[in-house]
Amino acid sequence: MHPVITQKDLEDSIRTIPDFPKPGIQFKDITTAIKDPDIFNYIVDNIVEYYKNKGITKVVAIESRGFIAGGAIASRLNAGFIPVRKPGKLPSETYSVNYSLEYGEGILEIHKDALKQNDIVMIHDDLLATGGTSLAVIELIRKFGISKIFLGYIIELDFLQGKKKLEPYPKYSLIHF
Amino acid sequence: MHPVITQKDLEDSIRTIPDFPKPGIQFKDITTAIKDPDIFNYIVDNIVEYYKNKGITKVVAIESRGFIAGGAIASRLNAGFIPVRKPGKLPSETYSVNYSLEYGEGILEIHKDALKQNDIVMIHDDLLATGGTSLAVIELIRKFGISKIFLGYIIELDFLQGKKKLEPYPKYSLIHF
Repeated sequence: MHPVITQKDLEDSIRTIPDFPKPGIQFKDITTAIKDPDIFNYIVDNIVEYYKNKGITKVVAIESRGFIAGGAIASRLNAGFIPVRKPGKLPSETYSVNYSLEYGEGILEIHKDALKQNDIVMIHDDLLATGGTSLAVIELIRKFGISKIFLGYIIELDFLQGKKKLEPYPKYSLIHF
Repeated sequence: MHPVITQKDLEDSIRTIPDFPKPGIQFKDITTAIKDPDIFNYIVDNIVEYYKNKGITKVVAIESRGFIAGGAIASRLNAGFIPVRKPGKLPSETYSVNYSLEYGEGILEIHKDALKQNDIVMIHDDLLATGGTSLAVIELIRKFGISKIFLGYIIELDFLQGKKKLEPYPKYSLIHF
Protein backbone atom coordinates (compact mmCIF):
# COMPACT_ATOMS: atom_id res chain seq x y z
CA MET A 1 0.00 0.00 0.00
CA HIS A 2 1.25 3.44 -0.88
CA PRO A 3 0.32 6.27 1.43
CA VAL A 4 -1.97 8.81 -0.21
CA ILE A 5 0.08 11.89 -1.01
CA THR A 6 -1.70 15.23 -1.10
CA GLN A 7 -0.83 18.47 -2.80
CA LYS A 8 -0.01 19.85 0.66
CA ASP A 9 2.45 17.00 1.33
CA LEU A 10 4.22 17.93 -1.88
CA GLU A 11 4.30 21.62 -1.01
CA ASP A 12 5.58 20.90 2.49
CA SER A 13 8.31 18.64 1.13
CA ILE A 14 9.89 21.39 -0.98
CA ARG A 15 12.54 23.32 0.91
CA THR A 16 13.16 27.03 0.41
CA ILE A 17 16.81 28.09 0.63
CA PRO A 18 17.26 31.85 1.04
CA ASP A 19 19.91 33.65 -1.01
CA PHE A 20 20.87 30.69 -3.22
CA PRO A 21 22.60 30.76 -5.63
CA LYS A 22 22.61 34.57 -5.31
CA PRO A 23 21.47 37.08 -2.67
CA GLY A 24 17.76 37.79 -2.96
CA ILE A 25 16.85 34.47 -4.61
CA GLN A 26 14.52 32.17 -2.63
CA PHE A 27 15.64 28.85 -4.11
CA LYS A 28 13.05 26.05 -4.29
CA ASP A 29 14.92 22.86 -3.44
CA ILE A 30 13.21 19.69 -4.73
CA THR A 31 15.80 17.28 -3.28
CA THR A 32 13.76 17.04 -0.06
CA ALA A 33 10.70 16.07 -2.13
CA ILE A 34 12.22 13.50 -4.48
CA LYS A 35 14.14 11.62 -1.79
CA ASP A 36 10.70 10.41 -0.63
CA PRO A 37 9.63 7.72 -3.13
CA ASP A 38 5.91 8.41 -2.63
CA ILE A 39 6.30 12.12 -3.29
CA PHE A 40 8.61 11.49 -6.25
CA ASN A 41 6.01 9.14 -7.75
CA TYR A 42 3.20 11.59 -6.98
CA ILE A 43 5.07 14.14 -9.13
CA VAL A 44 5.69 11.67 -11.96
CA ASP A 45 2.15 10.21 -11.83
CA ASN A 46 0.49 13.63 -12.01
CA ILE A 47 2.48 14.91 -14.98
CA VAL A 48 2.05 11.58 -16.81
CA GLU A 49 -1.70 11.55 -16.07
CA TYR A 50 -2.08 15.08 -17.43
CA TYR A 51 -0.21 14.42 -20.68
CA LYS A 52 -0.82 10.71 -21.35
CA ASN A 53 -3.38 11.24 -24.12
CA LYS A 54 -1.52 13.89 -26.13
CA GLY A 55 0.51 11.48 -28.25
CA ILE A 56 3.81 12.77 -26.92
CA THR A 57 6.71 11.11 -28.73
CA LYS A 58 9.66 12.89 -27.07
CA VAL A 59 10.33 14.39 -23.66
CA VAL A 60 12.89 17.19 -24.00
CA ALA A 61 14.41 17.78 -20.57
CA ILE A 62 16.67 20.61 -19.43
CA GLU A 63 20.02 19.93 -17.70
CA SER A 64 20.41 18.96 -14.89
CA ARG A 65 17.39 18.92 -12.57
CA GLY A 66 15.00 18.45 -15.48
CA PHE A 67 16.64 15.09 -16.24
CA ILE A 68 15.43 13.53 -12.96
CA ALA A 69 11.63 13.46 -13.32
CA GLY A 70 12.10 13.89 -17.09
CA GLY A 71 13.58 10.39 -17.37
CA ALA A 72 10.77 8.87 -15.34
CA ILE A 73 8.08 10.73 -17.31
CA ALA A 74 9.56 9.74 -20.69
CA SER A 75 9.69 6.10 -19.62
CA ARG A 76 6.06 6.13 -18.43
CA LEU A 77 4.76 8.00 -21.51
CA ASN A 78 6.74 5.59 -23.70
CA ALA A 79 8.41 8.62 -25.27
CA GLY A 80 12.06 9.09 -26.22
CA PHE A 81 14.28 11.14 -23.92
CA ILE A 82 16.10 14.15 -25.38
CA PRO A 83 18.58 16.14 -23.27
CA VAL A 84 19.08 19.88 -23.70
CA ARG A 85 22.51 20.70 -22.28
CA LYS A 86 25.01 23.45 -21.62
CA PRO A 87 27.61 24.11 -24.32
CA GLY A 88 30.25 21.49 -25.02
CA LYS A 89 28.44 18.67 -23.21
CA LEU A 90 26.67 17.05 -26.18
CA PRO A 91 29.23 15.16 -28.25
CA SER A 92 27.73 15.33 -31.76
CA GLU A 93 26.49 18.18 -33.99
CA THR A 94 24.14 20.59 -32.22
CA TYR A 95 21.82 23.52 -32.66
CA SER A 96 22.45 26.17 -30.01
CA VAL A 97 20.57 29.15 -28.62
CA ASN A 98 21.40 32.05 -26.31
CA TYR A 99 19.07 32.56 -23.38
CA SER A 100 18.63 34.70 -20.32
CA LEU A 101 17.31 33.41 -16.99
CA GLU A 102 16.71 34.42 -13.43
CA TYR A 103 20.36 34.01 -12.47
CA GLY A 104 22.19 35.26 -15.59
CA GLU A 105 22.78 34.33 -19.21
CA GLY A 106 23.85 31.24 -21.06
CA ILE A 107 23.76 28.95 -24.07
CA LEU A 108 21.79 25.74 -24.51
CA GLU A 109 22.31 23.00 -27.07
CA ILE A 110 20.38 20.09 -28.60
CA HIS A 111 21.65 17.38 -30.93
CA LYS A 112 20.70 17.95 -34.58
CA ASP A 113 19.51 14.33 -34.82
CA ALA A 114 17.40 14.53 -31.66
CA LEU A 115 13.99 15.26 -33.19
CA LYS A 116 11.93 14.92 -36.37
CA GLN A 117 9.35 17.32 -37.77
CA ASN A 118 6.39 15.09 -36.83
CA ASP A 119 7.46 14.66 -33.19
CA ILE A 120 5.07 15.78 -30.47
CA VAL A 121 7.21 17.20 -27.70
CA MET A 122 6.84 17.78 -24.01
CA ILE A 123 9.44 20.11 -22.51
CA HIS A 124 10.20 19.33 -18.88
CA ASP A 125 12.10 21.28 -16.25
CA ASP A 126 11.74 21.18 -12.48
CA LEU A 127 10.82 24.85 -12.23
CA LEU A 128 9.28 27.61 -14.34
CA ALA A 129 10.64 31.01 -13.28
CA THR A 130 10.84 33.85 -15.82
CA GLY A 131 10.31 31.49 -18.75
CA GLY A 132 13.56 32.49 -20.41
CA THR A 133 15.03 29.01 -20.40
CA SER A 134 11.86 27.38 -21.70
CA LEU A 135 11.51 29.97 -24.45
CA ALA A 136 15.07 29.19 -25.54
CA VAL A 137 14.28 25.48 -25.63
CA ILE A 138 11.14 26.15 -27.68
CA GLU A 139 13.35 28.07 -30.13
CA LEU A 140 15.64 25.02 -30.35
CA ILE A 141 12.68 22.68 -30.95
CA ARG A 142 11.16 24.93 -33.61
CA LYS A 143 14.38 24.60 -35.64
CA PHE A 144 13.17 21.06 -36.43
CA GLY A 145 9.88 22.42 -37.82
CA ILE A 146 7.96 21.09 -34.82
CA SER A 147 4.82 22.96 -33.72
CA LYS A 148 3.20 20.56 -31.23
CA ILE A 149 4.93 21.52 -28.00
CA PHE A 150 3.63 20.98 -24.44
CA LEU A 151 5.22 22.25 -21.22
CA GLY A 152 5.36 20.37 -17.91
CA TYR A 153 6.90 21.61 -14.65
CA ILE A 154 6.92 20.56 -11.02
CA ILE A 155 6.95 24.14 -9.69
CA GLU A 156 5.86 27.48 -11.18
CA LEU A 157 6.79 30.80 -9.59
CA ASP A 158 3.69 32.78 -10.54
CA PHE A 159 5.07 36.21 -9.53
CA LEU A 160 7.79 35.96 -12.22
CA GLN A 161 5.08 35.67 -14.91
CA GLY A 162 6.89 33.11 -17.06
CA LYS A 163 3.43 32.03 -18.22
CA LYS A 164 3.02 35.18 -20.32
CA LYS A 165 6.18 34.49 -22.35
CA LEU A 166 4.99 30.95 -23.11
CA GLU A 167 1.32 31.70 -23.78
CA PRO A 168 0.72 29.85 -27.06
CA TYR A 169 1.93 26.57 -25.57
CA PRO A 170 -0.19 24.31 -23.33
CA LYS A 171 1.35 24.19 -19.85
CA TYR A 172 0.92 22.15 -16.70
CA SER A 173 2.60 22.97 -13.39
CA LEU A 174 2.05 20.80 -10.35
CA ILE A 175 2.57 23.52 -7.72
CA HIS A 176 2.37 27.29 -7.84
CA PHE A 177 4.23 29.60 -5.44
CA MET B 1 2.61 -3.95 -28.83
CA HIS B 2 6.20 -3.00 -28.13
CA PRO B 3 8.82 -4.28 -30.50
CA VAL B 4 11.14 -6.79 -28.87
CA ILE B 5 14.46 -5.10 -28.22
CA THR B 6 17.58 -7.22 -28.17
CA GLN B 7 20.96 -6.68 -26.59
CA LYS B 8 22.32 -6.12 -30.12
CA ASP B 9 19.72 -3.38 -30.78
CA LEU B 10 20.95 -1.62 -27.64
CA GLU B 11 24.61 -2.00 -28.62
CA ASP B 12 23.91 -0.75 -32.14
CA SER B 13 22.03 2.28 -30.80
CA ILE B 14 25.00 3.59 -28.82
CA ARG B 15 27.15 5.95 -30.85
CA THR B 16 30.93 6.16 -30.48
CA ILE B 17 32.38 9.66 -30.85
CA PRO B 18 36.15 9.66 -31.38
CA ASP B 19 38.30 12.15 -29.46
CA PHE B 20 35.54 13.49 -27.19
CA PRO B 21 35.86 15.27 -24.86
CA LYS B 22 39.65 14.85 -25.28
CA PRO B 23 41.94 13.36 -27.94
CA GLY B 24 42.23 9.61 -27.57
CA ILE B 25 38.89 9.12 -25.79
CA GLN B 26 36.29 7.02 -27.63
CA PHE B 27 33.15 8.55 -26.08
CA LYS B 28 30.09 6.29 -25.75
CA ASP B 29 27.09 8.49 -26.56
CA ILE B 30 23.81 7.19 -25.12
CA THR B 31 21.63 9.98 -26.60
CA THR B 32 21.08 7.90 -29.75
CA ALA B 33 19.84 5.02 -27.56
CA ILE B 34 17.53 6.88 -25.18
CA LYS B 35 15.80 8.91 -27.86
CA ASP B 36 14.17 5.61 -28.90
CA PRO B 37 11.46 4.92 -26.29
CA ASP B 38 11.71 1.15 -26.68
CA ILE B 39 15.45 1.14 -26.14
CA PHE B 40 15.18 3.59 -23.23
CA ASN B 41 12.61 1.30 -21.59
CA TYR B 42 14.72 -1.78 -22.35
CA ILE B 43 17.52 -0.15 -20.32
CA VAL B 44 15.21 0.81 -17.44
CA ASP B 45 13.36 -2.53 -17.42
CA ASN B 46 16.57 -4.56 -17.29
CA ILE B 47 18.17 -2.64 -14.42
CA VAL B 48 14.86 -2.64 -12.49
CA GLU B 49 14.40 -6.39 -13.10
CA TYR B 50 17.92 -7.12 -11.84
CA TYR B 51 17.57 -5.10 -8.62
CA LYS B 52 13.84 -5.27 -7.84
CA ASN B 53 14.15 -7.80 -4.99
CA LYS B 54 17.06 -6.20 -3.13
CA GLY B 55 14.96 -3.83 -0.99
CA ILE B 56 16.60 -0.74 -2.48
CA THR B 57 15.31 2.39 -0.71
CA LYS B 58 17.37 5.06 -2.51
CA VAL B 59 18.82 5.46 -5.99
CA VAL B 60 21.90 7.69 -5.81
CA ALA B 61 22.55 9.04 -9.30
CA ILE B 62 25.58 10.91 -10.58
CA GLU B 63 25.21 14.27 -12.38
CA SER B 64 24.21 14.72 -15.17
CA ARG B 65 23.74 11.65 -17.40
CA GLY B 66 23.12 9.41 -14.39
CA PHE B 67 19.99 11.42 -13.62
CA ILE B 68 18.19 10.30 -16.79
CA ALA B 69 17.72 6.56 -16.33
CA GLY B 70 18.31 7.09 -12.58
CA GLY B 71 15.00 8.94 -12.25
CA ALA B 72 13.11 6.27 -14.16
CA ILE B 73 14.73 3.45 -12.15
CA ALA B 74 14.01 5.13 -8.79
CA SER B 75 10.39 5.63 -9.77
CA ARG B 76 9.97 2.00 -10.83
CA LEU B 77 11.77 0.58 -7.76
CA ASN B 78 9.67 2.89 -5.58
CA ALA B 79 12.93 4.26 -4.15
CA GLY B 80 13.82 7.85 -3.34
CA PHE B 81 16.03 9.75 -5.76
CA ILE B 82 19.29 11.26 -4.44
CA PRO B 83 21.46 13.43 -6.68
CA VAL B 84 25.26 13.53 -6.37
CA ARG B 85 26.40 16.78 -7.92
CA LYS B 86 29.39 18.94 -8.73
CA PRO B 87 30.44 21.55 -6.14
CA GLY B 88 28.13 24.49 -5.46
CA LYS B 89 25.07 22.94 -7.13
CA LEU B 90 23.36 21.47 -4.06
CA PRO B 91 21.83 24.28 -2.02
CA SER B 92 21.94 22.86 1.53
CA GLU B 93 24.72 21.37 3.72
CA THR B 94 26.78 18.71 1.96
CA TYR B 95 29.46 16.10 2.39
CA SER B 96 32.06 16.33 -0.34
CA VAL B 97 34.78 14.11 -1.77
CA ASN B 98 37.68 14.53 -4.18
CA TYR B 99 37.83 12.10 -7.04
CA SER B 100 39.81 11.31 -10.16
CA LEU B 101 38.30 10.05 -13.41
CA GLU B 102 39.12 9.25 -16.99
CA TYR B 103 39.03 12.91 -18.04
CA GLY B 104 40.63 14.68 -15.03
CA GLU B 105 39.88 15.46 -11.38
CA GLY B 106 36.97 16.91 -9.49
CA ILE B 107 34.80 17.16 -6.41
CA LEU B 108 31.39 15.56 -5.82
CA GLU B 109 28.81 16.48 -3.19
CA ILE B 110 25.77 14.92 -1.52
CA HIS B 111 23.27 16.56 0.85
CA LYS B 112 23.86 15.66 4.51
CA ASP B 113 20.13 14.89 4.89
CA ALA B 114 20.00 12.68 1.77
CA LEU B 115 20.39 9.26 3.38
CA LYS B 116 19.92 7.34 6.65
CA GLN B 117 22.05 4.54 8.07
CA ASN B 118 19.49 1.84 7.29
CA ASP B 119 19.06 2.84 3.63
CA ILE B 120 19.82 0.28 0.95
CA VAL B 121 21.38 2.15 -1.94
CA MET B 122 21.80 1.61 -5.63
CA ILE B 123 24.37 3.90 -7.26
CA HIS B 124 23.56 4.63 -10.90
CA ASP B 125 25.62 6.22 -13.63
CA ASP B 126 25.36 5.77 -17.37
CA LEU B 127 28.89 4.43 -17.71
CA LEU B 128 31.54 2.66 -15.62
CA ALA B 129 35.03 3.56 -16.83
CA THR B 130 37.98 3.54 -14.39
CA GLY B 131 35.65 3.36 -11.38
CA GLY B 132 37.08 6.54 -9.84
CA THR B 133 33.76 8.38 -9.80
CA SER B 134 31.81 5.45 -8.36
CA LEU B 135 34.45 4.89 -5.67
CA ALA B 136 34.11 8.56 -4.67
CA VAL B 137 30.32 8.18 -4.46
CA ILE B 138 30.73 5.04 -2.32
CA GLU B 139 32.95 7.10 -0.01
CA LEU B 140 30.17 9.71 0.23
CA ILE B 141 27.54 7.05 1.00
CA ARG B 142 29.70 5.36 3.65
CA LYS B 143 29.78 8.68 5.56
CA PHE B 144 26.16 7.88 6.48
CA GLY B 145 27.19 4.49 7.94
CA ILE B 146 25.56 2.66 5.05
CA SER B 147 27.03 -0.69 4.01
CA LYS B 148 24.38 -2.10 1.64
CA ILE B 149 25.43 -0.60 -1.68
CA PHE B 150 24.64 -1.91 -5.18
CA LEU B 151 25.97 -0.57 -8.48
CA GLY B 152 24.02 -0.30 -11.74
CA TYR B 153 25.30 0.96 -15.09
CA ILE B 154 24.16 1.01 -18.68
CA ILE B 155 27.68 0.59 -20.11
CA GLU B 156 30.91 -0.83 -18.69
CA LEU B 157 34.27 -0.32 -20.39
CA ASP B 158 35.92 -3.59 -19.42
CA PHE B 159 39.44 -2.63 -20.55
CA LEU B 160 39.59 0.16 -17.94
CA GLN B 161 39.07 -2.42 -15.17
CA GLY B 162 36.80 -0.27 -13.01
CA LYS B 163 35.38 -3.56 -11.71
CA LYS B 164 38.53 -4.25 -9.69
CA LYS B 165 38.28 -1.00 -7.73
CA LEU B 166 34.65 -1.74 -6.83
CA GLU B 167 35.02 -5.45 -6.08
CA PRO B 168 33.20 -5.75 -2.74
CA TYR B 169 30.01 -4.20 -4.16
CA PRO B 170 27.47 -6.12 -6.27
CA LYS B 171 27.43 -4.68 -9.77
CA TYR B 172 25.24 -4.96 -12.86
CA SER B 173 26.14 -3.47 -16.24
CA LEU B 174 23.84 -3.86 -19.20
CA ILE B 175 26.52 -3.74 -21.92
CA HIS B 176 30.24 -4.36 -21.91
CA PHE B 177 32.67 -2.84 -24.41
